[in-house]
Amino acid sequence: MTHVQISHGGGGQEMGQFIRQLFFSRFGNEILSRDEDAASLSISGPIAMTTDSFTVSPLFFPGGNIGSLAIAGTCNDLAMAAAKPTYLSCGFMIEEGLALSELTEIVDTMAKELSRIGAQIVCGDTKVVPKGSVDKVFINTTGIGAILREGVSAHHLQAGDCILVSRDIGCHGACVLAQRESMALETQIESDCDLLWPAVDALLHADIEIHAMRDATRGGLSAVLNEWCQTSQVQLVIDEQSVPVTDAVRGLCELFGFEPYDLANEGTFVLAVPAKDSDTALAALRQHHPNAACIGTVQAGTPARPILCNPWGSRRYLDFPAGELLPRIC
Amino acid sequence: MTHVQISHGGGGQEMGQFIRQLFFSRFGNEILSRDEDAASLSISGPIAMTTDSFTVSPLFFPGGNIGSLAIAGTCNDLAMAAAKPTYLSCGFMIEEGLALSELTEIVDTMAKELSRIGAQIVCGDTKVVPKGSVDKVFINTTGIGAILREGVSAHHLQAGDCILVSRDIGCHGACVLAQRESMALETQIESDCDLLWPAVDALLHADIEIHAMRDATRGGLSAVLNEWCQTSQVQLVIDEQSVPVTDAVRGLCELFGFEPYDLANEGTFVLAVPAKDSDTALAALRQHHPNAACIGTVQAGTPARPILCNPWGSRRYLDFPAGELLPRIC
Repeated sequence: MTHVQISHGGGGQEMGQFIRQLFFSRFGNEILSRDEDAASLSISGPIAMTTDSFTVSPLFFPGGNIGSLAIAGTCNDLAMAAAKPTYLSCGFMIEEGLALSELTEIVDTMAKELSRIGAQIVCGDTKVVPKGSVDKVFINTTGIGAILREGVSAHHLQAGDCILVSRDIGCHGACVLAQRESMALETQIESDCDLLWPAVDALLHADIEIHAMRDATRGGLSAVLNEWCQTSQVQLVIDEQSVPVTDAVRGLCELFGFEPYDLANEGTFVLAVPAKDSDTALAALRQHHPNAACIGTVQAGTPARPILCNPWGSRRYLDFPAGELLPRIC
Repeated sequence: MTHVQISHGGGGQEMGQFIRQLFFSRFGNEILSRDEDAASLSISGPIAMTTDSFTVSPLFFPGGNIGSLAIAGTCNDLAMAAAKPTYLSCGFMIEEGLALSELTEIVDTMAKELSRIGAQIVCGDTKVVPKGSVDKVFINTTGIGAILREGVSAHHLQAGDCILVSRDIGCHGACVLAQRESMALETQIESDCDLLWPAVDALLHADIEIHAMRDATRGGLSAVLNEWCQTSQVQLVIDEQSVPVTDAVRGLCELFGFEPYDLANEGTFVLAVPAKDSDTALAALRQHHPNAACIGTVQAGTPARPILCNPWGSRRYLDFPAGELLPRIC
């Protein structure tokens, strides 16, 4: 058997075998292996919950695949709420005929990523749909974890805060774009797809306040900064020159007419901390990525929008991304 | 705007508006409306977690639609673990061009079903994929809730237990089959799609022991009984004549060569209780559906398989469903 068949999702004998061989053997843990209708878990204190579906095309790209995205995407949303990613569900929606070798590689990647932060898949669901009903495979992951610090929120930006990014921006979007266009670039662009929990864990252990954290996924840095302005009713003054963008990403943006601020990231986050804690936070971030940078400050004022300042003194609003952005980026 | 567009899933301005207008307005609650990366929840004691993806075709059928399935499916899996369905995530994977009127009807149905048991959607994700990448819409829901009684488990069947079903079986599978084949039946078969929490709540409040509960979804009654035999290493002696099947479902099965035992259900569950509690349990179930019945007993013995006994004294093993069952049933 080399390809997924309809019977693998039918709820009968074949599905049982398929699930045990493919998923249980790789995600195996005591909770999942009980194979009940629902997993039985224990978490104390306040809980964060988040969900994400992954429809990326192509399934495999430099720096990751749909499986690494499915783990990073959901775990990172938990990390952004200062919650330790602990228990995940996964739902596979598979097109009949998908090569088992591809699916196996995806599941292997998921298991490897989970093990890096000690998170577990505790329940799952597998659907197989006839050819043409879905393109290869979509994955949903939903995660929960204990919130280790309360009050980290898009509502809590304050005038005087520094805005930090954890690394150079736009890699995931640029990488998928280059793959789709089958571009042979001088420098291959790798997705930034990565788990943010180790960096967040370091920040939580540093002696600093954290006002807000958000990973800059779909909609990129532009969406995060705009959302923060609206939610906390503040202005953000961003120094364009401080925003880390690699030459490769900048080059691709110029070629296609994109702004790097609008490109998706899958392992890059934005952080608002009081100015007094900015250096400590930046040092912690740089232990995980050398390109982490302080890119601006929060100020009171209207309209509540981010303002980009370039080195020649000109200022412009950074808009929410709009229109047809790259689909199936994650 | 009458149809879903790619930009509705892009992470930009259009997505923000789309989500607020379509989802927040219907699922609206304090947690969801905070619009953070992750919802912040509070549950005390042991927690159950379950996930399910829905790919049913057609989207609308007599007795429900993909939205009612998406709520019932996940809430029922929680209910089967004696957990009160409390917080749900939902992930929509939408094909570009889907009529907004259809999507709105689906979301309306979800909101209505949630309100029946006081459960809430607390986080969500929306992806829009280009035409042809998915057939209309797939939905994932993942749910968590406090386990109100521990020890209800497929591992806990004991010799002497009675096996009860909550109503007549096979309606959902038969309904979807009839819809796909565009059959004009004398009696329209309605899906059994329904929330099981009210019945489970009644059972938990009755003064009885519950050894196991499972809803007979994909794979139908056959799959549940076989799984229970394997997991608890017992035999189940099922009285074929006691298993409630309506004439309409039986007729359709004869026409297509299916066994009603193999057909999917979406609001029907199987229960194992000690013999002493069987009458009380049955009375509680019948307040929710008059067709609830005791269909057999658990006995020690090998092989650990369910045995169907017919009124003429013959006995046969009830097998796991196998082969190409109806795809996209849920």
